[in-house]
Amino acid sequence: MRLSRAFQPTLKETPAEAQIASHRLMLRAGLVRQTSAGIYAWLPMGLRVLRNIGQIVREEQDKIGAQEVLMPTIQSADLWRRSGRYDAYGPEMLRIRDRHDRDMLYGPTNEEMITDLFGSAVKSYKELPQSLYHIQWKFRDEVRPRFGVMRGREFLMKDAYSFDSSYEAAVASYQRMMLGYLRTFQRLGVRAVPMVADTGPIGGDLSHEFLVLAPTGESGVFFDAALEEQDWLGETVDLDSHESLARFFGRVTESYAATDEKHDADAWAGVPDARKREGRGIEVGHIFYFGTKYTESMGIAVSGADGTQFHPHMGSYGIGVSRLAGAIIEASHDEAGIIWPDSVAPYRAAILNLKPGDEATDALCERLYASEPENLLYDDRAERAGVKFNDADLMGHPWQLIVGPRGAKVGLVELKRRATGERFELSVDEALARIRSA
Amino acid sequence: MRLSRAFQPTLKETPAEAQIASHRLMLRAGLVRQTSAGIYAWLPMGLRVLRNIGQIVREEQDKIGAQEVLMPTIQSADLWRRSGRYDAYGPEMLRIRDRHDRDMLYGPTNEEMITDLFGSAVKSYKELPQSLYHIQWKFRDEVRPRFGVMRGREFLMKDAYSFDSSYEAAVASYQRMMLGYLRTFQRLGVRAVPMVADTGPIGGDLSHEFLVLAPTGESGVFFDAALEEQDWLGETVDLDSHESLARFFGRVTESYAATDEKHDADAWAGVPDARKREGRGIEVGHIFYFGTKYTESMGIAVSGADGTQFHPHMGSYGIGVSRLAGAIIEASHDEAGIIWPDSVAPYRAAILNLKPGDEATDALCERLYASEPENLLYDDRAERAGVKFNDADLMGHPWQLIVGPRGAKVGLVELKRRATGERFELSVDEALARIRSA
Repeated sequence: MRLSRAFQPTLKETPAEAQIASHRLMLRAGLVRQTSAGIYAWLPMGLRVLRNIGQIVREEQDKIGAQEVLMPTIQSADLWRRSGRYDAYGPEMLRIRDRHDRDMLYGPTNEEMITDLFGSAVKSYKELPQSLYHIQWKFRDEVRPRFGVMRGREFLMKDAYSFDSSYEAAVASYQRMMLGYLRTFQRLGVRAVPMVADTGPIGGDLSHEFLVLAPTGESGVFFDAALEEQDWLGETVDLDSHESLARFFGRVTESYAATDEKHDADAWAGVPDARKREGRGIEVGHIFYFGTKYTESMGIAVSGADGTQFHPHMGSYGIGVSRLAGAIIEASHDEAGIIWPDSVAPYRAAILNLKPGDEATDALCERLYASEPENLLYDDRAERAGVKFNDADLMGHPWQLIVGPRGAKVGLVELKRRATGERFELSVDEALARIRSA
Repeated sequence: MRLSRAFQPTLKETPAEAQIASHRLMLRAGLVRQTSAGIYAWLPMGLRVLRNIGQIVREEQDKIGAQEVLMPTIQSADLWRRSGRYDAYGPEMLRIRDRHDRDMLYGPTNEEMITDLFGSAVKSYKELPQSLYHIQWKFRDEVRPRFGVMRGREFLMKDAYSFDSSYEAAVASYQRMMLGYLRTFQRLGVRAVPMVADTGPIGGDLSHEFLVLAPTGESGVFFDAALEEQDWLGETVDLDSHESLARFFGRVTESYAATDEKHDADAWAGVPDARKREGRGIEVGHIFYFGTKYTESMGIAVSGADGTQFHPHMGSYGIGVSRLAGAIIEASHDEAGIIWPDSVAPYRAAILNLKPGDEATDALCERLYASEPENLLYDDRAERAGVKFNDADLMGHPWQLIVGPRGAKVGLVELKRRATGERFELSVDEALARIRSA
């Protein structure tokens, strides 16, 4: 994309309403614009980030055998009356009456709908396990929406639901999802540490939240460094073996990790000092086993091996996709702007033409741009070099390909790595090879 | 995907509520399930089709220089009060009150929001033209939703909006979009003929609807065969040249095409009989120039070359993405089921294992499947051959790779082309090469 033609409105001033870095930077870099309280439009560069995040989430869900569906945003209140949650849900639920005076709602989550969908399609234990997910907009009518996309009212979420024939099989589904989540966050370029969370009335320890480490996080976190050093992508786990899954799960949960709410000073004392990590975290995912709560209340059963009907065991698993755009920035920015991890960056690199109109400079920039126009942002604007440096740092492209008349004359490009500030003087081919190998 | 593990509930009976072929086939093949009146969940195979359609629409919008954004589903009523449409819009608008008693609505279209977004970002004629689009769920509270996804209440639409500094520039934007639409529909494997449509109070001839030819279409259509024979993908048009665009547009509009509402018997008489085509059509797209209607009513202006402020000229351009899934089936099916065009098919081919448990048959099927598991559906179920044949025809995979014990023993596969019924006996490599080249 040529920046001169892009719909990419950057702001020079910091918007007054933005209290945290990600909100400020997303507005200033032109990633999103607020359209109503807690509701945002995603501008081209923001949408590219949102889609990159969604695609990584999707690929890792597919790899653990979850199947993607797409449920609608508008649900019938009757569905929620069957589970008993319609009256129990607070004012965060956006309640709607349609033209025929039927009670509807904008889905804040989809346990009821997926359970009903599952029940209408699956009749036998032979068809289990099933894991279904979708990536869809949700609405929660927060009383005070703030922090930009981190706590918006309309937000994009991946929610998955598993159906199993027994508690043991449900545990395996839960462990598969744990692996998928750890891999997802690692690929997104952030470290998200799983912490035991409250399970509510069901009890047990099958609930974890995933927190991205960032100084502005809402919770204090204490954890063993082992959890951020592990390479989950290199972890070999047999997804069909309960033993293999249990071994993996044991390795995850044997290391100490807790939010301040659940912090246990005695257990913490047992962690060697060199491996103690303290900080703050932003919740970006939550996995949860809840047994037969919905299949029972909604009367959904399948036939077992002996012919009798039983209620499948369920779990639900959420990742805040739009929230992650903000959380990644909270975890990865500096004074000058955003520092995108390569995997989610809107563009692989920006080309900075320091002297538009200079023949050699223009020619070299065009040559770079032509190599991969869909993945490069070409700053061809008639602006001063300083403006271009600032905007590129603000937008956070992982690499900058800086082209001035002196270098252009001899075919050289200055390549800057945004994260480290390192600079390299390279030929066109060397520079392109370098950014492609990242 | 292995069908034995897929969430792919086919129905043996034809659902009573389904009056048209696409609705019936989408339910029977397990592409969608209704969750409320006129609201559907997309099951895995349906979602793959929906995404394929969306991706082709996206690529062709990008090629004509439109930029993708994503606006939210929930809008503020105040935005619509600024244009004067809030009170004018009928009961099809889903009106919502949030917890702070603010009037909100589920967007049925986005002229107001995009005009506001544009106005907040673009200040000078130098930044024009701009074309912005998004692919987002809309809601229209139809009094009698029917025909499945063809006339649902929650539906996926691509809507684009152009902003130009003059009428002439707006005409060029309109013509660019016409080209993009013709290419889009051609790639989708359907022929959609552009027909002059009503422009309402603005007048002129800058409104066209695109109708897919299908016997169950809602409108009668009369058109010159030239319009369905033209290869729009091969058409060379300079998108930056008003002359080149006007020549292309002239070639499109010189051929007769009209719905029954606008049919002109005298003009029709001038079309040579051999080129007369009559039939029925389903509206799948609409492009529309409406001048300064919204920029004026909403007070959006930019500065011109002479420093004075002016209201940009706008057009809007819609494609019914979810509707197209149904329209394509209406245009392409037979007694046995769907016939997907290769470009939108959920899977490139289905592998039919006629004797699961037979060693040679299983081995050959696994070999086929391993070549491209993400693009093949492997029917590995313990079902009779007849069930597999029927389901594959119903689901409409463009190719069927049929593997039985006799052929497997000598390494041969029967390849069936769904559209023509042709069958070929081929080696594994030949069969895979054949389906890849389609």
